[in-house]
This record gives sequence, C-alpha cells and structure tokens, in this order.
Amino acid sequence: MRKVTFGCANSLDNFIARKDGSFDWIMWGDEVTETINEYWAKFDTILMGRKTYEVALAQSKGKKNPYPNIKSYVFSRTWEAKKDEEVEIVTSDAVEFVQNLKSQDGKEICVMGGGDFAKTLLEAKLIDEIGFNIHPILLGSGIPLFLEMKEQINLQLIESKTLKNGCIVVSYRVK
Amino acid sequence: MRKVTFGCANSLDNFIARKDGSFDWIMWGDEVTETINEYWAKFDTILMGRKTYEVALAQSKGKKNPYPNIKSYVFSRTWEAKKDEEVEIVTSDAVEFVQNLKSQDGKEICVMGGGDFAKTLLEAKLIDEIGFNIHPILLGSGIPLFLEMKEQINLQLIESKTLKNGCIVVSYRVK
Repeated sequence: MRKVTFGCANSLDNFIARKDGSFDWIMWGDEVTETINEYWAKFDTILMGRKTYEVALAQSKGKKNPYPNIKSYVFSRTWEAKKDEEVEIVTSDAVEFVQNLKSQDGKEICVMGGGDFAKTLLEAKLIDEIGFNIHPILLGSGIPLFLEMKEQINLQLIESKTLKNGCIVVSYRVK
Repeated sequence: MRKVTFGCANSLDNFIARKDGSFDWIMWGDEVTETINEYWAKFDTILMGRKTYEVALAQSKGKKNPYPNIKSYVFSRTWEAKKDEEVEIVTSDAVEFVQNLKSQDGKEICVMGGGDFAKTLLEAKLIDEIGFNIHPILLGSGIPLFLEMKEQINLQLIESKTLKNGCIVVSYRVK
C-alpha cells in the first residue's frame, strides 16, 4: 500500500492561509528549500480539494498543473469530472477513490491543503503520516488546518526539527 | 515590568481539553514533571478565567486555591468580586487590572487556560511569552486554545524541546 501523507505550512494557531487565501506570511530560505525538496522527492501523486487547487492555480503562472511532473487529483462536488494526463478532476466518492489509489503501484501520495478534504481522509483512516511546518506567528483568523472530527486520532512523533527562522518542522505517524 | 506568560498543554489541533473539560489525554512522566517544575518556579501569580478556575478547582481535592503558594486571580463577568489572601475574584476590567499587576513588584505572572481570557490579554498586548506542550494527538473537538483575533501576532521562537513521550515543548516571545 502506498503511504499517504498530509502536510503543509501552518501558523501556530493552525491556519493554512489568511481568510482571502493569501500566504504572504510563509517564510522561505535555503533551509526551507532543502526541507521542501526532501519532502517532495517522495511523491508522484498529489490529492487536493477544489479550493486548494484554485489557490495553487492562481500562483502557477498559467500552468494547468501547479505541481509539474506530479500527477494531481482535484476532488470537487461542484465541478465536472475531467481526465487529463496531468490533472484529473474527481467527482466520485473521495474515500473510495483514494482507497483504490493507495492499492496501486507508485511512489508516495501527498494530501495538500486542510479543512474538509483532509478531514474526510483522516476520518476514513486513509492518512498514514501528517507533517507541518509550524510558523512562529498567530494569524488570528484564516482558513483552518483542522476541522472538528468525530473521533480523536492518536499520533506518534517521527521527527521535530527547528529551523533557523523559528519554524518547527514536525512529522507524525497516524496510529 | 513583570513578565506575563501564557502557557498550557494542547493537542496538535489546539484543544486544551475535551468538550466536557477533561484532560485524560495529557501525558505525564519524569521528563514532564521536570519541565513543569522548571516552568512553575518562575511564577508567584496566576491569572485565569472563571471556567478554567472551575476545572482546576474540581481537581484540587477541596482546596480553594488549586495552586498552593501562588496567588491566583480569577476573572469573571458573572461572579461577585471577592478578595482573599490566596484567591481573588476580579470582576473589574481585566486589561486594566493586569496592566496594574504587571507594574507591581513580584515574580513572573502565568496565564492559565485558553479561549476568551487569553485572547483578551493577547489583543491588549499584555502577554510577553507563550509556551505550549504540544501533545501527539488530534482530539478532534474540545475547548479551543485560540479564538479568532483581530490582528496577527508575530512571534520569535525561544526554544523547542522534544520529549521522549513525543510531546514538543515550545516557547515564543511575543514581538
């Protein structure tokens, strides 16, 4: 079974973007680039909700796939299904689709964004690892990383790494 | 000016207790005891909201002050003001009261609990440091550590320490 990892950058108060979707508060630098490159090398597949895709698309300078060389699946309840070599719009049941994807051959699978889509996969126990780059900021408001869930999820810390810029990169195995 | 620190144990999804106020999920052990003792040695004063006090009181085996040898101030909009050597119920404006307390002589001041009371002090820029013991768990629901705030608050990481039990103890200076 392919490993599914849910990860992103977040504020200490667990927002992944401001209310308008902006993420100007995210810190960059050599150490961050290195961490990100290491992180991305594991994946050949990205899963994201429609809203996250729209935000990524707005930043991708006209490219249809914001993540080149990685197959992107966008899950939507409002768009029409569309199959494409790079980006596939999925309108069928996300849980069933991801279950099937996990059983196929391939590298690891990355879940982008937070909120509703991540919650669906977490509750269906389809996520194996979670990892965040916790930024030294309280945004005060924004798009939440986590929504309320039916059950608690126990985690096992894999690694915690402090960057020079004050970010803390953490990863956990979902028990 | 006395330093004011807001700190507690939280889940990775930023709850400080389950919905019913319980915190059976909090991890203990020698390393935790050591960290807590080190933390508490700095303070001679605790500030908390009425709800946090009630939870602490329920655990304190009949003692009126859940934190012996530390002067406790409980802020309430519904209770009557009451002055006592150990516990004082404050019904006047919390911001003004804490401003005054900060300017008095004494050791450091600790803010307990989360939610509304901490938000009031954070927004009034009365908190100098924040620190959390981030537990390896997603509670899914509960009493939130942070409420929505009017403005972002920039932080500077002071320390991040990983405990053997998978907790991450972090502290930040409020910029």
